[in-house]
Amino acid sequence: MTMRIKTLGLDADDTLWHNERFFHLTQERFTELLADFAERDHLAERLLAAERRNIRQYGYGIKGFVLSMIETAVEITESRVPGHVIGQIIAAGQEMLAHPIDLLPGVEDTLEALRGRHRLIVITKGDLLDQERKLAQSGLGEMFDAVEIVSEKTPTSYARIFDKHGEGPATALMAGNSMASDVLPAIHAGGWGVFVPHGQEWALEKAEPPVDHPRYRQISTLSSLPELLAWIEAH
Amino acid sequence: MTMRIKTLGLDADDTLWHNERFFHLTQERFTELLADFAERDHLAERLLAAERRNIRQYGYGIKGFVLSMIETAVEITESRVPGHVIGQIIAAGQEMLAHPIDLLPGVEDTLEALRGRHRLIVITKGDLLDQERKLAQSGLGEMFDAVEIVSEKTPTSYARIFDKHGEGPATALMAGNSMASDVLPAIHAGGWGVFVPHGQEWALEKAEPPVDHPRYRQISTLSSLPELLAWIEAH
Repeated sequence: MTMRIKTLGLDADDTLWHNERFFHLTQERFTELLADFAERDHLAERLLAAERRNIRQYGYGIKGFVLSMIETAVEITESRVPGHVIGQIIAAGQEMLAHPIDLLPGVEDTLEALRGRHRLIVITKGDLLDQERKLAQSGLGEMFDAVEIVSEKTPTSYARIFDKHGEGPATALMAGNSMASDVLPAIHAGGWGVFVPHGQEWALEKAEPPVDHPRYRQISTLSSLPELLAWIEAH
Repeated sequence: MTMRIKTLGLDADDTLWHNERFFHLTQERFTELLADFAERDHLAERLLAAERRNIRQYGYGIKGFVLSMIETAVEITESRVPGHVIGQIIAAGQEMLAHPIDLLPGVEDTLEALRGRHRLIVITKGDLLDQERKLAQSGLGEMFDAVEIVSEKTPTSYARIFDKHGEGPATALMAGNSMASDVLPAIHAGGWGVFVPHGQEWALEKAEPPVDHPRYRQISTLSSLPELLAWIEAH
């Protein structure tokens, strides 16, 4: 029996282009700005705790990250944070929102090879406007049949997207660098989940790989996706 | 000649439920927190200038508003803003993100009267997650055929939405409280634009009404919409 993968979902941040490294760089700067008040590790821990606490209200993206940094700065200094530090955190966030798009290796060639053969859908979360900006600046917009920006990647949201752009999860595959957001919920929805690790993972996106699941695969780079798709469709 | 309005777009904030008043209340609090540093009018002016400057990067919504308040607080105090003031601005933003939904008068009955007769679409901008939360809490979700959350309301975005959910702008009507975002771009797209003023308008949403345009109307409350639709369809 052979099967066709009709719908191919691709994550954007750290799957098509670099992203997490801008968060890391900003967090480095944040650590330096508050070096007089807190140790690096303690600061990182408190910031992560704030991000976890706020994610349900702020959602994903740069603006929520900046607000969590500011909250952590006030907390950790017991309100003694200097105003210029707050100003510099705000400025760092604005730089993040303007960072240039740097595509990951092989992305363009891979998309060229896949388009036409599958319905290509970008499936991403984060700030609506920022994700639209990045896609526009990437020059990849024309490669995709649709763009879906969601507030949370869940089995339900994948099922809805795969129904809308194809024939449902059974003939769909999602590839991305987040085990928690790209791989697991796509498999739970009934599709394939392909992990393409980026190396820099945000703590909130980590999860155990479902190593024994028949619809789970890991590839080292997006360039291996056409070969994997050929294998899946031949088996 | 009679025409049918197939697609009915409705704005959400201050059209279906109160919204701007939470921004006003928070801005009042912001003014009080910084009363030692700046006069009310000057502060309001500087905050609006920051909002204007940042809107292209932050987009619409509460998180961008909070970031602009913090930036203004740092600026206006020449970095002498006390940390507890920053903490209170952050807390005020979190309260806004949790505020209960208070429907405007007549909204439920009006939607009941219109559903089934037209394709009802919520068309809103702002933070994706926050708009989803408000729609869920409003209990109105079931009334609508679709929800479109966009980063900016332009003639292009209206044309796309009206094509997708109906037969294009020529048989579509958009109603909302913003002249700049709901009325003018919907008319420019080729549809009807109906202004339902709320009384509290954000400065960035103000624009001159196209009083002589044949597809422009103003109604004082959403409850008048079924009657206006009947009139349009009869003429």
